[in-house]
Amino acid sequence: MDAIPIMTLKRLPQYLEAIYKFKRAGLKMVSATKIAVFTDVHMTQVRKDLAYTGVVGTPKVGHKIDELISAIEQCLNWNDASSCFLVGVGHLGKALMGYSELSRKGLRIIAAFDVNPELAGTELHEIPIYNVDKLSNLLNRLHIHIGIITTPADAAQEVADLLVANGVIAIWNFTPAKLNLPEEVIVENIDMSSSLAVLSRRVAEKLYHPITRN
Amino acid sequence: MDAIPIMTLKRLPQYLEAIYKFKRAGLKMVSATKIAVFTDVHMTQVRKDLAYTGVVGTPKVGHKIDELISAIEQCLNWNDASSCFLVGVGHLGKALMGYSELSRKGLRIIAAFDVNPELAGTELHEIPIYNVDKLSNLLNRLHIHIGIITTPADAAQEVADLLVANGVIAIWNFTPAKLNLPEEVIVENIDMSSSLAVLSRRVAEKLYHPITRN
Repeated sequence: MDAIPIMTLKRLPQYLEAIYKFKRAGLKMVSATKIAVFTDVHMTQVRKDLAYTGVVGTPKVGHKIDELISAIEQCLNWNDASSCFLVGVGHLGKALMGYSELSRKGLRIIAAFDVNPELAGTELHEIPIYNVDKLSNLLNRLHIHIGIITTPADAAQEVADLLVANGVIAIWNFTPAKLNLPEEVIVENIDMSSSLAVLSRRVAEKLYHPITRN
Repeated sequence: MDAIPIMTLKRLPQYLEAIYKFKRAGLKMVSATKIAVFTDVHMTQVRKDLAYTGVVGTPKVGHKIDELISAIEQCLNWNDASSCFLVGVGHLGKALMGYSELSRKGLRIIAAFDVNPELAGTELHEIPIYNVDKLSNLLNRLHIHIGIITTPADAAQEVADLLVANGVIAIWNFTPAKLNLPEEVIVENIDMSSSLAVLSRRVAEKLYHPITRN
């Protein structure tokens, strides 16, 4: 399996959404040009990106939609949802547990963990919640390779270390903490608090003292 | 209200989380050093960042915790939750509507909009859902300045244009679409699909053909 450039990986889900749309509209074939128009990516780039999926199109006609969909899904590992654990069943953790789209996109949360003893033994959206002291044991028993961290920021490093020590090779970090981990561990960060902080402040600056901006 | 550097804005929520923790532990005073230890940011940086909040600490003693909390919250506009509209009541939109933490962090979703006629007139987590054809009218009537977009990517630009045309000055964009908007509009992007795509693929590369990576 060859490494695909990170920017290509980031565009593929966009192409897929456009292609699903064409399929729902009844089309059987789709061209890079059509995808380009819908996604606002240049068609030369779309062609390059699609080449990584290994499907070969017919000049002037394009790609068979079903072939293209399954090639892209396979590239993104979506047709083989990976099991993962989520640690930190707070507001954000609960929202992610209820976000069923994740499993369609390759990630199935099969268990969640929290330090709160009142949550242990319960379940949410059919996902069981355990006390965090069961984490090491279950990681090893179930050979889990992916962890989602939705704890408070100051617990994130400790949780990440525990995950990695027990076989996790990839972490989806939803806390603002910058994780310090061995280089080979794959980390993707989504920092909603920081993004919201920037947004709120910029709005306040603009609304209350528009002159200091611009 | 002076402009605060974007990196400072991104760190302040982290400091707040640490300070809340100290408060819960019963402390009345907190130093930049203590915050630095908990957030893994250098104490010189913490001091610089806190200076933007306008609070003045006592040398060797630090800051009164309650004063510092309210100064940072005010900086982040958290003590004055801004009303906003959410457009696109799909999986992610629903998750955000249920994410009550948002309103504690300055953003209150007061209505949601969707093209699906079956959703119009219903509500979710006490937030009413309207047909998207009511969007312009309600934006104007309620003087809403912030919009959250959780539609499919190919609808995002159209929705953003509509929001901006009706008074919105800041957009929190959860789609992978790159929005093309007047420069003065504040846009923050959270692209979960792309982040997940990168994560899944990297895991697949590593698990199935570890030699091609490294």
